[in-house]
Amino acid sequence: MADTPRIACSALQSKIMTAAEAAELIPAGATVGMSGFTGAGYPKAVPGALAERIKKLNESGQTGFRINVWTGASTAPELDGELAKVDGINMRLPFQTDPICREKINNGEMDYIDYHLSEVSQYAWSGFLGKMNIAVIEATAIREDGSLVPSSSIGNNKTWIEQADHIIIEVNHKQPAKLEGMHDVYYGTALPPHRKPIMITKPADRIGEKYLACPIEKVIAVVETNAADRNSPFKPTDEVSKRIADHIINFLKDEIEIGRLPPEMLPIQSGVGNIPNAVLEGLNDGPFKNLTSFTEVIQDGMLKMLKSGTLAVASATSFSLSPEGIKEFEDNIDLYREKIILRQQDLSNHPELIRRLGVIAMNGLLEADIYGNVNSTHVMGTRMMNGIGGSGDFARNGYLSIFVSPATAKGGDISAIVPMVSHVDHTEHDVKVIVTEHGLADLRGLSPRKRAMEIINKCADPAYRPALMSYFERACASGRGMHTPHLLGEALSWHQRYEETGKML
Amino acid sequence: MADTPRIACSALQSKIMTAAEAAELIPAGATVGMSGFTGAGYPKAVPGALAERIKKLNESGQTGFRINVWTGASTAPELDGELAKVDGINMRLPFQTDPICREKINNGEMDYIDYHLSEVSQYAWSGFLGKMNIAVIEATAIREDGSLVPSSSIGNNKTWIEQADHIIIEVNHKQPAKLEGMHDVYYGTALPPHRKPIMITKPADRIGEKYLACPIEKVIAVVETNAADRNSPFKPTDEVSKRIADHIINFLKDEIEIGRLPPEMLPIQSGVGNIPNAVLEGLNDGPFKNLTSFTEVIQDGMLKMLKSGTLAVASATSFSLSPEGIKEFEDNIDLYREKIILRQQDLSNHPELIRRLGVIAMNGLLEADIYGNVNSTHVMGTRMMNGIGGSGDFARNGYLSIFVSPATAKGGDISAIVPMVSHVDHTEHDVKVIVTEHGLADLRGLSPRKRAMEIINKCADPAYRPALMSYFERACASGRGMHTPHLLGEALSWHQRYEETGKML
Repeated sequence: MADTPRIACSALQSKIMTAAEAAELIPAGATVGMSGFTGAGYPKAVPGALAERIKKLNESGQTGFRINVWTGASTAPELDGELAKVDGINMRLPFQTDPICREKINNGEMDYIDYHLSEVSQYAWSGFLGKMNIAVIEATAIREDGSLVPSSSIGNNKTWIEQADHIIIEVNHKQPAKLEGMHDVYYGTALPPHRKPIMITKPADRIGEKYLACPIEKVIAVVETNAADRNSPFKPTDEVSKRIADHIINFLKDEIEIGRLPPEMLPIQSGVGNIPNAVLEGLNDGPFKNLTSFTEVIQDGMLKMLKSGTLAVASATSFSLSPEGIKEFEDNIDLYREKIILRQQDLSNHPELIRRLGVIAMNGLLEADIYGNVNSTHVMGTRMMNGIGGSGDFARNGYLSIFVSPATAKGGDISAIVPMVSHVDHTEHDVKVIVTEHGLADLRGLSPRKRAMEIINKCADPAYRPALMSYFERACASGRGMHTPHLLGEALSWHQRYEETGKML
Repeated sequence: MADTPRIACSALQSKIMTAAEAAELIPAGATVGMSGFTGAGYPKAVPGALAERIKKLNESGQTGFRINVWTGASTAPELDGELAKVDGINMRLPFQTDPICREKINNGEMDYIDYHLSEVSQYAWSGFLGKMNIAVIEATAIREDGSLVPSSSIGNNKTWIEQADHIIIEVNHKQPAKLEGMHDVYYGTALPPHRKPIMITKPADRIGEKYLACPIEKVIAVVETNAADRNSPFKPTDEVSKRIADHIINFLKDEIEIGRLPPEMLPIQSGVGNIPNAVLEGLNDGPFKNLTSFTEVIQDGMLKMLKSGTLAVASATSFSLSPEGIKEFEDNIDLYREKIILRQQDLSNHPELIRRLGVIAMNGLLEADIYGNVNSTHVMGTRMMNGIGGSGDFARNGYLSIFVSPATAKGGDISAIVPMVSHVDHTEHDVKVIVTEHGLADLRGLSPRKRAMEIINKCADPAYRPALMSYFERACASGRGMHTPHLLGEALSWHQRYEETGKML
């Protein structure tokens, strides 16, 4: 704890209460905007207390208490898991990764809409999605004037505070007081026709405020917590991730050498997970200096790069760190505060900024087809894995969009390269490079049939290449359209076979 | 002809030659950047002369003379048609609508890459697509200093002139001299990390030059022509288009009334064709005043709106007018010059500007599926119709994206609403409203299964509703994923049946 009290606003002292008391203030049917992005900065206590309340109601026969939950992105078991477990969520947006939620969504028991993460704030403002009743926001501290020192993520908090009728604040004593000053909250956004250019020209630019303005009169509860963010143990880089990372790093080195990328590269966006972390490790071991990052999430690999000087600055909206990463961050927070900027997600993912800065986007895929269409959300075309998240924001408007995946899943029973994807999140127009452990397919300037040769030969697992090539050749010989040859009766047969036999081939 | 000579640059007098002589300067294998966008402002003579040259070579046994053709968008028979007829095109990008090209593409005889129209200029600059050798650019006039008064489209001309080693200029005496001053060519673009905010905050803003800078030393030929742009006779609004337009206009009125759109609406983007023209006619008949347009193409309907005052200003990169429209435009060019701004297509379609201005995007679809994914390019999943064009630029970054189509095609044998689209150009995330003559499906805030009900009940042709509902219900009952229920073995069966029997059902 710092010297300044965590709740410095005298007018809000009377609103301090328990999580259970605060949860009583949330009415059935409410649309609730919660803080939280990739398991950082989500409210730790009120959602669980609400779930407890719902559970009791359900047990007493008063079933049907449900709310709509809007967040920044994914949260944690204490929020999504607890509420889903008691069937407390009616509609969930724009992104989640919780296993219980996933099950409810795929059983048809919970409505879910995955939206581009940059657009959610705009939709809330436009009224397209209806009214927000209550915001539940984790903060590091409340200042004298009621403004908030944001927590370990900003996400959509600025919009939730502005749009909700009432606000519940969780002040988390576990969040380092020294987060103060790391945030950049921009108050220049507007609905059209009143929008102005956003004057960021480098990832390091600060154009906003350190604090979230918060109208005291809207605050109906303040709850104190002392709980760590969700975090997963750091996994050492596996061989497949390492090989994928090597392909990307060689590609980037070549692009610099040819002169298609500047020596300091362009700002990197990186999805979360083992492969992105491996790429970051690889970049850190390479000859690069003073790189920049304009991304959603700061993960362990980025801390290492920031410390070594490979990375000069990182702009994001949230953290996603292992326990070791959190310790490293907190032990050296003065160093990291100089190099990290946390923004609201409508800015971290803004098309205007991604296009202007020329971001190099690296995101994962579930499956890609031979023509370069990417499915990043739907298992076998029907079951939601997580959601599109920010990948579309970056892939569409980035300078280069790279998609990565191991070539197979489920011990080889699923090929990540298929004749036709069973769902499309990123069209052929937005996919420039595909990488697996077997190689890198550079799709720039290639027509669909040439892309097919590149993807099959470079990316597919050798065990699947003959079947893919057979499909492609027979499709070409079918006498149907030769722009994007397909055999319609067979295009989705790999998925169908997997559903029936547990193997794609 | 105006009083000023059309070729005022004395240094270029010696470069005046015939189209045949100019065509001799284009080497085999060259990548040629041609002017032209939706049949306006394309070179009228040199492509045909080159085709003639290729034809003679082919007849003499010297086959294999081919070039790569990059344009703004579609051109006309004199360019795409003539060159395709003699097998003169190796690779074509980023958009075309020519029937002979289409046949070659779908027979596998011509490589074609359809790109988002905003991105092509960036790719040319980045070197991702290779070197441009020659630019062939139509201009209205050449000024004393060698700069060009642009023609009836700008498209990618600025980039082609900058990127090509050599330039051939066609000066078209048929283009009205009074086009001068209508253009706004912006020289502030750059590759990252040197990009700056583009300071346009209203469709009417001018931030550039009236002329295209053109280095005299790169000009290898000047050819004079006197030929009209391609234009199609204006078709009176048919009943289906009228009903689609009515649905859209009622929707927009409602959105204004509810307060989700401002009274002056937001800038309109409209695809080309009968339905968009019907919507424009409908808007012109409605209560709207001082609307604005931020779009690719000025079509007949927009001229009427500009004249009546319904539309205050239109920003575009090109015209697409009927003969009557051209006459109206030329007869009243002083009036229209005050209200029309032509920009390069990397600005007319720029994600930054589309997002900032909050454009309402209206584009056509070939087919949509019950979950809101849109195919706008591939007939039965394999045959290219035209290309994605600018629809993705506007749909992804616009404030509202509306897709329109008659509910059936081929006399009812094809349903525009299908269980699963056979190709995806616009994902579920980028499609907010779908409209057919039967109704308007408002997909905002709906999860996939709710979208299915809305689309089937509002948009599908009544003759197809039972089969669609049966598919949806059986998919829901299948025991597979309930987020986006599908029957993989049946999802593309409608397309397959059409290929085999000529009917989807």
